[in-house]
Amino acid sequence: MSQPKFLSGDEAGIDEFLDRFDVFLFDCDGVLWSGDHMFEKVPETLEMLRSKGKRLVFVTNNSTKSRADYKKKFDKLGIPAEVDEVFGSSYSAAVYIARILKLPAPKNKVFVMGESGIEQELEAEGVPYIGGTDPALRRDIEPEDFTNIANGSLLDPDVGIVLSGLDFHMNYLKTAIGFQYLQRGAEYLATNIDSTLPMAHSFFPGAGASGAGLEKAIGKTPVSFGKPSQAMMDAIEGKFKLNRSRTCMIGDRLNTDIQFGIDGKLGGTLAVLTGVSKKEEFLAEGAKTVPSAYVNAIGDLLG
Amino acid sequence: MSQPKFLSGDEAGIDEFLDRFDVFLFDCDGVLWSGDHMFEKVPETLEMLRSKGKRLVFVTNNSTKSRADYKKKFDKLGIPAEVDEVFGSSYSAAVYIARILKLPAPKNKVFVMGESGIEQELEAEGVPYIGGTDPALRRDIEPEDFTNIANGSLLDPDVGIVLSGLDFHMNYLKTAIGFQYLQRGAEYLATNIDSTLPMAHSFFPGAGASGAGLEKAIGKTPVSFGKPSQAMMDAIEGKFKLNRSRTCMIGDRLNTDIQFGIDGKLGGTLAVLTGVSKKEEFLAEGAKTVPSAYVNAIGDLLG
Repeated sequence: MSQPKFLSGDEAGIDEFLDRFDVFLFDCDGVLWSGDHMFEKVPETLEMLRSKGKRLVFVTNNSTKSRADYKKKFDKLGIPAEVDEVFGSSYSAAVYIARILKLPAPKNKVFVMGESGIEQELEAEGVPYIGGTDPALRRDIEPEDFTNIANGSLLDPDVGIVLSGLDFHMNYLKTAIGFQYLQRGAEYLATNIDSTLPMAHSFFPGAGASGAGLEKAIGKTPVSFGKPSQAMMDAIEGKFKLNRSRTCMIGDRLNTDIQFGIDGKLGGTLAVLTGVSKKEEFLAEGAKTVPSAYVNAIGDLLG
Repeated sequence: MSQPKFLSGDEAGIDEFLDRFDVFLFDCDGVLWSGDHMFEKVPETLEMLRSKGKRLVFVTNNSTKSRADYKKKFDKLGIPAEVDEVFGSSYSAAVYIARILKLPAPKNKVFVMGESGIEQELEAEGVPYIGGTDPALRRDIEPEDFTNIANGSLLDPDVGIVLSGLDFHMNYLKTAIGFQYLQRGAEYLATNIDSTLPMAHSFFPGAGASGAGLEKAIGKTPVSFGKPSQAMMDAIEGKFKLNRSRTCMIGDRLNTDIQFGIDGKLGGTLAVLTGVSKKEEFLAEGAKTVPSAYVNAIGDLLG
């Protein structure tokens, strides 16, 4: 594999690189911002790309936020973006359920193990759901629950899908109910299966961790929609009608963002060093996932 | 592998089988009882074995109960047993921490992710711990917790071990704290990693499931003490000074109980059909885990 090109400070190199693409897929956290801290020159960089006629898509695995929530985050930080430019794992899962899986009603109800971002996207796609942020399920399991889950009286007979995402309110009760639906044949989906969530300059359990109890109990891997799953790439391609060879994925994580672009046979990938992965990881001899190019920070694309 | 011998109704076969052993290791749930329902002739069968001079050990993966709790369960069902005859995964983990791992104090404190059975056994072995049933941790994670976990102000600097077991009160906060201790180098142990818990004639998430979030986040497998882990067999052998070739494991689950006896190179294993595994599983051509003998129910040993 050829060495990735280092573009920071190389104006000719940057021009040549940008000219190769019509569409840029952006990871957000670690690229545009870290938590509530926006990196330098982000709005100017996006403006420059737009002025060159590039199409921008913001691709995020964070299932706790809907596209509308994300738009608010962009607004708050002063980054110009449209709802339609945001593509999240919850949205991707909702589109899959509504337009591809298409279980016949009323047996298409979703048991949600996650936060409101999932609920909002299901609602936008007209998919019925239960669970999620329902306060009735945010409690300890009681002895009688075991019987009522086992005999089905605590279950909704119309649930045909269990959809798991990052759940800050994960508990035994919801895991037991989701497990029972799966034992009864429900489809098993996950917005994404990231093991960790970068927060507060450290790592916290990600969607793959909050949903791992269900995965371990049932002994199966869910169909998942976050990067690097190509189900997400297919959904993005379907929505934006992009030409993969003229599309570039920009991200900070080798095993999700960059791998996502490589597996999707995009024209190129660009790593930024403001997030999780270090350049030593892809410059090392025999590195598994190597971007086409890299910059210290996204603002370096301004030259 | 030779076919297992069917002993129900075969008096000569039973006598010959029992004569081969001095010690019987019993799984409890699915062998002696199911939930709160005791199987037929259990006290009489145990009495018969004791009258022949056999030593009995009750081996359980259930980490929510201490040996003392188990003794109460035996009493309630009218099954004669002594606390010292009970060997649970929580006890096994506590003995390992106190007598084998022996981290130097005060850095030997355990962060418990589980129920009171673990706490009781750690206390009995003189091991300091936090977490467990502490009501302060039975709450939702709040935004400031992320910072305080990441910067360590919510952590106890003396924690050197994270011990995970079946936790009916699992939540994101405890998982995030346990994950932070592991990132800072704590030892990672689990009482057991059973994926499921048989309850109310169905299956619920087991200790391996309630602890799976931590395992997924850290990306490592814990050292675990439940069947079929040979750490538990070694501990039983150490405590009871048994002769493995004269010891028989009795259980209902092929992949835990029977495998435990086979891996431990015991003289024999006996499957009972009152629990999880069906005889078709071990009588099938090419079956992986095959007991030496089997009975329909434990009471059949009375002849």
